[in-house]
Amino acid sequence: MNEYFAARRALIDDYLAKLASRTGAPRPLAPPITRAMTSAGKRVRGILVLAAGESVGVKPEKLLDAAAAMELIHASSLVLDDLPAMDDAQLRRGAPTLHREFGEDLAILSAVALLNHSYGLVVKSHAALNPRQWPMAQVLKRVVDAVGWDGTIAGEAVDLHSEGSTLDFDTLEFIHSRKTGALFVAAAAIGAMMGNVSPAALGRIEVFAKNLGLAFQITDDVLDVTGSPEVLGKDVGKDAQRLTFVKLAGVDGARKLSEELVETSLAAIANLGPAAKPLRDLALLVRDRVS
Amino acid sequence: MNEYFAARRALIDDYLAKLASRTGAPRPLAPPITRAMTSAGKRVRGILVLAAGESVGVKPEKLLDAAAAMELIHASSLVLDDLPAMDDAQLRRGAPTLHREFGEDLAILSAVALLNHSYGLVVKSHAALNPRQWPMAQVLKRVVDAVGWDGTIAGEAVDLHSEGSTLDFDTLEFIHSRKTGALFVAAAAIGAMMGNVSPAALGRIEVFAKNLGLAFQITDDVLDVTGSPEVLGKDVGKDAQRLTFVKLAGVDGARKLSEELVETSLAAIANLGPAAKPLRDLALLVRDRVS
Repeated sequence: MNEYFAARRALIDDYLAKLASRTGAPRPLAPPITRAMTSAGKRVRGILVLAAGESVGVKPEKLLDAAAAMELIHASSLVLDDLPAMDDAQLRRGAPTLHREFGEDLAILSAVALLNHSYGLVVKSHAALNPRQWPMAQVLKRVVDAVGWDGTIAGEAVDLHSEGSTLDFDTLEFIHSRKTGALFVAAAAIGAMMGNVSPAALGRIEVFAKNLGLAFQITDDVLDVTGSPEVLGKDVGKDAQRLTFVKLAGVDGARKLSEELVETSLAAIANLGPAAKPLRDLALLVRDRVS
Repeated sequence: MNEYFAARRALIDDYLAKLASRTGAPRPLAPPITRAMTSAGKRVRGILVLAAGESVGVKPEKLLDAAAAMELIHASSLVLDDLPAMDDAQLRRGAPTLHREFGEDLAILSAVALLNHSYGLVVKSHAALNPRQWPMAQVLKRVVDAVGWDGTIAGEAVDLHSEGSTLDFDTLEFIHSRKTGALFVAAAAIGAMMGNVSPAALGRIEVFAKNLGLAFQITDDVLDVTGSPEVLGKDVGKDAQRLTFVKLAGVDGARKLSEELVETSLAAIANLGPAAKPLRDLALLVRDRVS
């Protein structure tokens, strides 16, 4: 990870720790919420907010609420995915999953609270930056759609209810574009919108993020086969019951596919100029996860 | 129920049915979401949005998105409360609880989707009415706070983790003011804000809703003791393990307390004039539930 990403990740981590110390949540809820907000993560979605905003001239410090919001949504979805009724996972980010540590009830309530609070953070971010080109309604609509019943929640539902059945490439792309792609697109979009990005540039950034999200998910599929829980900090081999790009195309085929998607994502923002360098570097970072 | 409430409830029911038919949710998720959105409910929170908006001159038809949003949040919280990890309830609104009918995974995902979509509806409602006095950020902050880690979610967490222990009146009021009061306050507030309510009148309407919410919860406690599942459409006696106002004050004491709270709520809006009649009638309706 280069210096830019290390610095951005540290900014986000510090900000999440600050937010976690100030929730005002009552006793039973505060510890699991704090844990979910501050457990070690790659912060790819938060960095994507910053990198997209910086590509149109917004200082990263001004985007921390929006970046934290995307990380809260992601953390919320991980807590839900890990529940006994879903993936029944034991390990996440190098620690016991939230329901194992704090009980299912508090895990579920924490996940809902994290999602809920993310709206407050996006609202705060928008109100502070007040981008004239993009009213709050348009920014929030992207978040609602990314999470909602045609977003990550839809992806998770179809994923869980397709297990064991023969999936085709289209269904797999439906699942991954929603479970991972939708939030990547929203993160990049809201970061750029906070900086009054032009509609044309926004479109390119969204194509970038959509392809990058899919590439990222495929690298995750590869790492689920080739990685270890010690390195990844989460259960591996969980996808054994599930169709993945690795099963469709093999490890080498999946690697190749993710490289192609990274190329497509880079092509989409080729005209955006030097300010988009962080976005380009992020794409290369995703590619290098499994190369 | 008088003609006004029957008419408003029908408006909300029709609108919820329309929304449910258009979610675009994928197959496994659409049936539980539709069920949760359209199962028979009193629609008190939605009616509160309309009555508060009408008290400052907004036509009810213009407030349906905001009203539906409050009903979606409420429906979401019921689905979560009923889960095996929470109250483990069997019956809700006269039918099997969502997790019993569709499985825990889809029940949880549906609840999260309902909450998420409620933000889209509040945003849509505000963007359409565009009240100059109240920016979208201020309206949404009320929703975030009502639901969040010092709102209904906090109330539910403290409620679940106080069972079996000796509670005092203050803790019980903490729980109820959040589990029920917070959303009542938000519903009344956002309805009135959509109509450019003055800050002073908004304050009075919020005091009204806070007291009414507590009164409503106490009548629920009473009905849990005196009602039957056939009439109430949900499990009764679920509160046997839990401290309620009935246990603190007896059935008659709880009745009296709810009457006093209704009086307090009415006093708060005594100066609001004839347009506030629906709010007053709603308070009387709550009082008459157990009288």
